[in-house]
Amino acid sequence: MSAQPINDLSKLCIHTITTKPWSLEEAAENYEKAGVKGISVWRQYLGGRDIAAAGERIRSHGLEIVSLVRGGFFPAVSERNRELAIQDNLKAVEEAAALRAPMIVLVCGADPGQSLETSRKQIREGIEKVLPQAIEHGVKLAIEPLHPMYADTRSAVNTLRQANEMAEAIGSDYVGVAADVYHLWWDPDLREELLRCGRNGNLFAFHICDWMSPTVDFLNDRGLMGEGCIDIPTIRGWAEEAGFSGFNEVEIFSDRHWAGDQNEFLNKIVSSYYHC
Amino acid sequence: MSAQPINDLSKLCIHTITTKPWSLEEAAENYEKAGVKGISVWRQYLGGRDIAAAGERIRSHGLEIVSLVRGGFFPAVSERNRELAIQDNLKAVEEAAALRAPMIVLVCGADPGQSLETSRKQIREGIEKVLPQAIEHGVKLAIEPLHPMYADTRSAVNTLRQANEMAEAIGSDYVGVAADVYHLWWDPDLREELLRCGRNGNLFAFHICDWMSPTVDFLNDRGLMGEGCIDIPTIRGWAEEAGFSGFNEVEIFSDRHWAGDQNEFLNKIVSSYYHC
Repeated sequence: MSAQPINDLSKLCIHTITTKPWSLEEAAENYEKAGVKGISVWRQYLGGRDIAAAGERIRSHGLEIVSLVRGGFFPAVSERNRELAIQDNLKAVEEAAALRAPMIVLVCGADPGQSLETSRKQIREGIEKVLPQAIEHGVKLAIEPLHPMYADTRSAVNTLRQANEMAEAIGSDYVGVAADVYHLWWDPDLREELLRCGRNGNLFAFHICDWMSPTVDFLNDRGLMGEGCIDIPTIRGWAEEAGFSGFNEVEIFSDRHWAGDQNEFLNKIVSSYYHC
Repeated sequence: MSAQPINDLSKLCIHTITTKPWSLEEAAENYEKAGVKGISVWRQYLGGRDIAAAGERIRSHGLEIVSLVRGGFFPAVSERNRELAIQDNLKAVEEAAALRAPMIVLVCGADPGQSLETSRKQIREGIEKVLPQAIEHGVKLAIEPLHPMYADTRSAVNTLRQANEMAEAIGSDYVGVAADVYHLWWDPDLREELLRCGRNGNLFAFHICDWMSPTVDFLNDRGLMGEGCIDIPTIRGWAEEAGFSGFNEVEIFSDRHWAGDQNEFLNKIVSSYYHC
């Protein structure tokens, strides 16, 4: 099944980190001018602000808040650090509720000082400890499987299958998955696992950007859609086949793009979006 | 099952690229002095040499030639380039035969200008085209699954399961798998797929090094065993559980280690080997 053609910007969401140099207010204003309809807010952009008021201001620009980014980072060798992570995630739930963001994206975490298996167990325990508060506030938790190159410190959940299995094992309407083409494009099981994710009601979010070839930095060398080698239309078609009808969230970390004029970059995001 | 303790160097093999600054002759001489028993020869080290004589000279140092590295790179958008790749692999088979190396490691390749599915199809076709010559010369071909971060240009085979499936589909005693902890350590199916690989007689080679945390370069920042976060003893135990009794091949690409004294580096390889 091919992806539906993109004829407007009604499903275009941008993560505030994508236009890193802009404040939350600048981002909201400029996204509106460009016709963008969704925004995912990274927590650092809320610093020093009244969060509820920030949410109202964002919505006054005609933007829907898609998610708060990011919770997670549950695993740690030290029990004290695991407890601190839980506290931070409970705080994130409160922030999401104040912002009226319906979902938190979880970068689950990993600690190179222990086995991946142990980290995975701690991730599940962490999610289950935060879940009652998330349910109480009506905030969903989206497990984001991260590329295997981040298995040392960022996430021990590295495939969509693992994320699906964890969401299914927890078995709550408030726990699902955020699928990002950057992390998953190489996976031979991607279509099958996207369909499974959708079938089980767990496909909460869909993130897009591109894989530069070559990629020169582990973190901040992601490409604009079309700059790299990911077949985004095919993967988006699979997400739609899985029943996904939410926002396409543009999440690009790029020293190269951050160094340039952000309005020009935003224009490029919009034009490349039509072809992804 | 825990790995057997390492009490001697009888199963220690080093890839010539690991001590990159040394010529083939220097490597063979120094490996012998250090008590190393196996060597895997990268093709560039054979440049300008009589290959059969080079093989004899290596063996005169008490070294067993474990593999010739590397063949592969089959996929290409251009038919002409695919044909050139076949020619190069046929040449590698002749080199391996002249060297009396029993095996060629295949870095299978990928072309960012086409889908991974197409690249995978071309990899299988490439192996099947080279196979008759390999059988005739008694040279085995080992498919090495590469880390997903290399899916754009180096290999569209990124998990041990994919390599197993391809080897099983080809179904020849001359086609198997080279398992490298660097590429596979993150995979939740690793034990199961190693057991499958051994059960089917396909576990031809076992490569070791470590994943630095953080890793700063996509190619040349691999660690000495113990410097990083890979639980090598556990994975080696799984390989042994799978019936593997061949060499543990040390394959480290490291600008950091290459910049230092190679004899000191060799000593560190030997001492860290006892604890991996």
